[in-house]
Amino acid sequence: MKSHLIFLIALLFIYQINAQETLIGFTPENTQKQITLETKFDAQLSADNLEEWMKLMSARPHYVGTEFGEENAKWIANQFKSWGYDTRIDTYHVLFPYPKIRSLELTSPTQYTTKLTAVPVEGDPYTGQGDELLPSYNAFSIDGDVEAELVFVNYGIPKDYEELEKLGIDVKGKIVIAKYAGSWRGIKPKLAAEKGAIGCIIYSDPKDDGYVRGDVYPKGAFKNKTGVQRGSVMDMPTYPGDVLTPGYGATKNAKRLEIEDAPTITKIPVLPISYEDAQPLLAALDGAVAPTSWKGGLPITYHIGPGPAKVHLKLEFDWQLKPAHNVIATMKGIEFPDQWIMRGNHHDAWVHGAADPVSGMVALMEEARAVGELAKAGNKPKRTLVYCAWDAEEPGLIGSTEWVEDHKQELQKKVVAYINTDGNGRGFLGAGGSHSLQAMVGEVAQSVTDPQKGVSVHDRRMAVNLIRGGTDKFELYALGSGSDYTPFIQHAGIAALNLGFGGENAGGEYHTIYDTYSHYKRFKDPEFAYGVTLAKTAGRIVLRMANADVLPFEFKQWHSTIAMYLDQVIKSCETMRADVEKHNKLLDKNAFELAADPSKPFVQPQRKARIPHLNFTPLMNTLDVLKMTVEEFSSKDFTKLSKNQLVELNKMLMKSEHILTNETGLPRRSWYKHQIYAPGFYTGYGVKTLPGVREAIEQENWEEAQEQIMLLSGTLKNLDQHIKNMSAL
Amino acid sequence: MKSHLIFLIALLFIYQINAQETLIGFTPENTQKQITLETKFDAQLSADNLEEWMKLMSARPHYVGTEFGEENAKWIANQFKSWGYDTRIDTYHVLFPYPKIRSLELTSPTQYTTKLTAVPVEGDPYTGQGDELLPSYNAFSIDGDVEAELVFVNYGIPKDYEELEKLGIDVKGKIVIAKYAGSWRGIKPKLAAEKGAIGCIIYSDPKDDGYVRGDVYPKGAFKNKTGVQRGSVMDMPTYPGDVLTPGYGATKNAKRLEIEDAPTITKIPVLPISYEDAQPLLAALDGAVAPTSWKGGLPITYHIGPGPAKVHLKLEFDWQLKPAHNVIATMKGIEFPDQWIMRGNHHDAWVHGAADPVSGMVALMEEARAVGELAKAGNKPKRTLVYCAWDAEEPGLIGSTEWVEDHKQELQKKVVAYINTDGNGRGFLGAGGSHSLQAMVGEVAQSVTDPQKGVSVHDRRMAVNLIRGGTDKFELYALGSGSDYTPFIQHAGIAALNLGFGGENAGGEYHTIYDTYSHYKRFKDPEFAYGVTLAKTAGRIVLRMANADVLPFEFKQWHSTIAMYLDQVIKSCETMRADVEKHNKLLDKNAFELAADPSKPFVQPQRKARIPHLNFTPLMNTLDVLKMTVEEFSSKDFTKLSKNQLVELNKMLMKSEHILTNETGLPRRSWYKHQIYAPGFYTGYGVKTLPGVREAIEQENWEEAQEQIMLLSGTLKNLDQHIKNMSAL
Repeated sequence: MKSHLIFLIALLFIYQINAQETLIGFTPENTQKQITLETKFDAQLSADNLEEWMKLMSARPHYVGTEFGEENAKWIANQFKSWGYDTRIDTYHVLFPYPKIRSLELTSPTQYTTKLTAVPVEGDPYTGQGDELLPSYNAFSIDGDVEAELVFVNYGIPKDYEELEKLGIDVKGKIVIAKYAGSWRGIKPKLAAEKGAIGCIIYSDPKDDGYVRGDVYPKGAFKNKTGVQRGSVMDMPTYPGDVLTPGYGATKNAKRLEIEDAPTITKIPVLPISYEDAQPLLAALDGAVAPTSWKGGLPITYHIGPGPAKVHLKLEFDWQLKPAHNVIATMKGIEFPDQWIMRGNHHDAWVHGAADPVSGMVALMEEARAVGELAKAGNKPKRTLVYCAWDAEEPGLIGSTEWVEDHKQELQKKVVAYINTDGNGRGFLGAGGSHSLQAMVGEVAQSVTDPQKGVSVHDRRMAVNLIRGGTDKFELYALGSGSDYTPFIQHAGIAALNLGFGGENAGGEYHTIYDTYSHYKRFKDPEFAYGVTLAKTAGRIVLRMANADVLPFEFKQWHSTIAMYLDQVIKSCETMRADVEKHNKLLDKNAFELAADPSKPFVQPQRKARIPHLNFTPLMNTLDVLKMTVEEFSSKDFTKLSKNQLVELNKMLMKSEHILTNETGLPRRSWYKHQIYAPGFYTGYGVKTLPGVREAIEQENWEEAQEQIMLLSGTLKNLDQHIKNMSAL
Repeated sequence: MKSHLIFLIALLFIYQINAQETLIGFTPENTQKQITLETKFDAQLSADNLEEWMKLMSARPHYVGTEFGEENAKWIANQFKSWGYDTRIDTYHVLFPYPKIRSLELTSPTQYTTKLTAVPVEGDPYTGQGDELLPSYNAFSIDGDVEAELVFVNYGIPKDYEELEKLGIDVKGKIVIAKYAGSWRGIKPKLAAEKGAIGCIIYSDPKDDGYVRGDVYPKGAFKNKTGVQRGSVMDMPTYPGDVLTPGYGATKNAKRLEIEDAPTITKIPVLPISYEDAQPLLAALDGAVAPTSWKGGLPITYHIGPGPAKVHLKLEFDWQLKPAHNVIATMKGIEFPDQWIMRGNHHDAWVHGAADPVSGMVALMEEARAVGELAKAGNKPKRTLVYCAWDAEEPGLIGSTEWVEDHKQELQKKVVAYINTDGNGRGFLGAGGSHSLQAMVGEVAQSVTDPQKGVSVHDRRMAVNLIRGGTDKFELYALGSGSDYTPFIQHAGIAALNLGFGGENAGGEYHTIYDTYSHYKRFKDPEFAYGVTLAKTAGRIVLRMANADVLPFEFKQWHSTIAMYLDQVIKSCETMRADVEKHNKLLDKNAFELAADPSKPFVQPQRKARIPHLNFTPLMNTLDVLKMTVEEFSSKDFTKLSKNQLVELNKMLMKSEHILTNETGLPRRSWYKHQIYAPGFYTGYGVKTLPGVREAIEQENWEEAQEQIMLLSGTLKNLDQHIKNMSAL
């Protein structure tokens, strides 16, 4: 028996060596050290800390400019100090509107005054904090006092306006009412204003996060009839951050735009409301019945209008500069102090923000504490770690953006990668970011155990992908926007990741007074097990990047991803072409008119312009060459380089993401420099990959599309040369 | 100027000759006569008659056994007589249950007593007829008194029970509540009973035909909160018609089954309710939240249960024999009196039945009146016309079924085809039936003008097909069940068609007290223009079949349709095989368990059995041979045959549909003889083409599937020989 056991242990040992001797970027020897370090790291992590800190930090509302927010920042800073970090608070002075007047009434054909207030619920004392709770509003709505007929515009996204056009309905001079969801909220007033609307109401339909989804709070996790989602509506796809200081830090004495000149404040007033408040407004609409896909979950027939419902919307804000306190905690690397691994999460919330952002913040802090413990025990990182707790993320990624803008040159020189987290909960790993880091993240995901199922978080993710009809290939999603990675990757061209668990934590609390510890504890991650798992995952990524012999950038997976994006873009042209041909053929046959119900309004669709054939060959050829280049690069064993050569190689690897940017930026939004990833101009958070080319095609701007193809090809050629230079080492 | 005009007229004349000299089945000479006849026929039709007759016939409820129903039958008979038809009333004595006790209460955890009564509405005096309105119930529910926990089963169709199984929910000993729609209603209690449920409630969800679809009655056409759909739940997929006399006519002295032995009465009590009555029951459910696709439009979270909602359902019926009065009106053909073109529509209704069936009945009557006028003017049909107004269609196609069973042998000898109509409204031509008639129906559709758009009803249908992503090839849909064509085609093997207009007449009045003249006039076909168009369409088909030199059966389109069905069946096997392989692969990877949320109930799915490869080659070979045979047949010019040969050919053509039947019928339901078309055993009205083979595959009964392939191949070989015999003439 005993000899069998020894044999088994030996087998296990051999297996472990074999399985792990190839940790990406590590020599076999350093792999073993690193694995030992990670085991020690895991042992430090305590779910109790996460829970205790969440209670502390989400005890009261802490949006930017609040005293409690500042207290939180100071408390976070003190924590970091106690764990051995050099910690400072970098404060910026940023414009933040606080609502003074919020009034919305149905004035015709019946009268209804909206309540605009969510009710406290039993069992959740946080919801009973009265006036301290930030009133529900959309930050960076312009002031306004408008009265007009109402039009229901579904989600208020481009294809909804196409549908309205088909029905012959114009929103010019009207106030639109749009459902939350379907796009980032800021797109709704932006597009409504472009179409001539004079006001915009956004409401949460029960189909999207209310009773249709599940039981409502406090019985269940979903939105009760009084809940209202707050949120920023600044034009972030143009630029995020302080609206008065585009492209540079909002320091105390920075030069500022006049408020009326700030291009990212909305053009029309916007107000979010609950579904209890929305129902009388929607019920008072008449006109065409909404298309099936537009219909929500209220017990009414959804009509589009315009009118006879008429509403009066009045909004006035107190526009003040508020201090945004970013906590910056540094642990200097012992070998490469000028190579920084950055890690961040925001600390400000719309109200209590237990899930968003505190659940991510406490995981980051526990990770940092454990790293501090390791350092105290002599395991200091080779590279410098910078932990950040951002302020003013909610109103528009303001804290992080101002800081990145303010430190851009230094960051571009020193930062290896920025790893972001935000809200977190029970479920599956979601990881997005630079695809040169995909292989490393996949490797990390295989080494972290899912707390519910006992397999790796990688394997659980793959299982759910398979069940949903996908593949079992680990992939990073592409980053659009919606959290603090944006200034790093899309403005500064720094490799970035965004990590979080979720999928078993659905609810309707997002940006409402119901995002509390009480709600989180019941519905999101009761044991804080996924908080610990997030700390393990992000912590491993930080530690591997900090200690790797060769920085773990990998270009074969990067290449196949970019090739897939190009394929998508080419196919989208073909689809557009086929659609146009089909559409025009239907017009030739007069099919639209013949199929139309004469008792309903009908607008004969326009003939569509031919979709020209774009010349994609420069991109195809560049990608073909790149393929050979990355294959050669991947075949090298860099661990055998001399120390100096390794230093040189790592410096070059750090720059590889920046090569994918272009200093002139994207057309009409020069703040966005990255040529591979950007938030969509008309989707907001939703990513557009190869954005210059893709969006020109979507807007049918063929000349620009061809220019962008050439530009992107040039960018990719630069990377090709850069990788060749690295291979030559 | 004048010479130009003459030239134009000459051109027009030549064009007309050319365009129409090939009317299917007619010599060029007789084509011209027929077209002239059809022009005269059209000129006779008056929309005013349709409206006047609808008001008359739908003035009061007229379900089988009512005095008003009998009055209607007599009045219809007198009308036919006045138009020159030999008219009689054939009466059968059929079991019809009238509700004595209807009681449904929520007994726990809260109390609610359902109202079970729709309210009268302003502007519609018919809805105020009080006790004369037939109470809402499902005919051929068994009597019962049950109390149990409730389970929500979505539409209560097979895939819903698969979903319940995944969730570990059993309905054994429970009462199920299912939404109307998704299948024929009778499937719901049938399947519930098979799964062990002891009662079944069916309700109309507002998402399916209530406020979600559009404004409710009386503001709009859809179902208000009190409306209840009546309807039969007898097991029609086993056999329709009188439950006590399967396969033979329910004549006065016919031998009858005991009620307790009647296999088509439900096994458990069933009651339909309104959404007002359903809401408290559904709201009292707890347990798993229903899957997204199950959720309806009520302002609640849909839970599945079981319980804690408990309901008490008590039903008792008065089971009496009632007289069903079929009106049979004959106009003898002057050349071929023993070749009958049959035409029918039912006259009984659940309540007033303005749309269902009176809108179709009045179109049939106006058509018959016009044909009568033509006959009086000397244009008597060559073949015999038989116009039928069926009674007792609503409780289970009873009037027509008993009549067909009673006259089966004569009908099989004499009937060329049966053309059915039922409810009708504004919109697009829908035509289903024997595919040997497809070419002829398509030709007719091209010669009838749409009253709203001025193009042919064929072209309008094609336009809507194209807009919906289909092709512009005219196709008959395959007949399942749901109206009186069933006994003709599926039992007697007589070629049949079903015709109607619709698509711009949606509403929620079906089988409720709101299907009145007032509702019809506002929402269905205000000008009765589509009633006249239906008369034109069906009338042309009747007249062409009555007068054709060669009966207009065509087998090339028939063949390509059957070949497509075979292709579907073969592909369905491949899809099943791929699904099973994928499912088992997911099990191998333990993906179901890993992806499952441990806070929710989870049942590990079973490994699925391999899908064997069936040998379809006998069918493929037979269809290949048939292809050559029908091509040869189609290449012949039969108009050049001698008169005697023509008589012989037409006799053989009349038999061609019957050759597609098999006297032993389908497995487990021998009443259904047709081998190409049948209502699905678990879909009800929904058709299953090549039913013996297709349903054996769906039930994974591989031995039976292979047997049915051989059987069907034999049937098709018989047709092949039959067509060869015709070609040899």
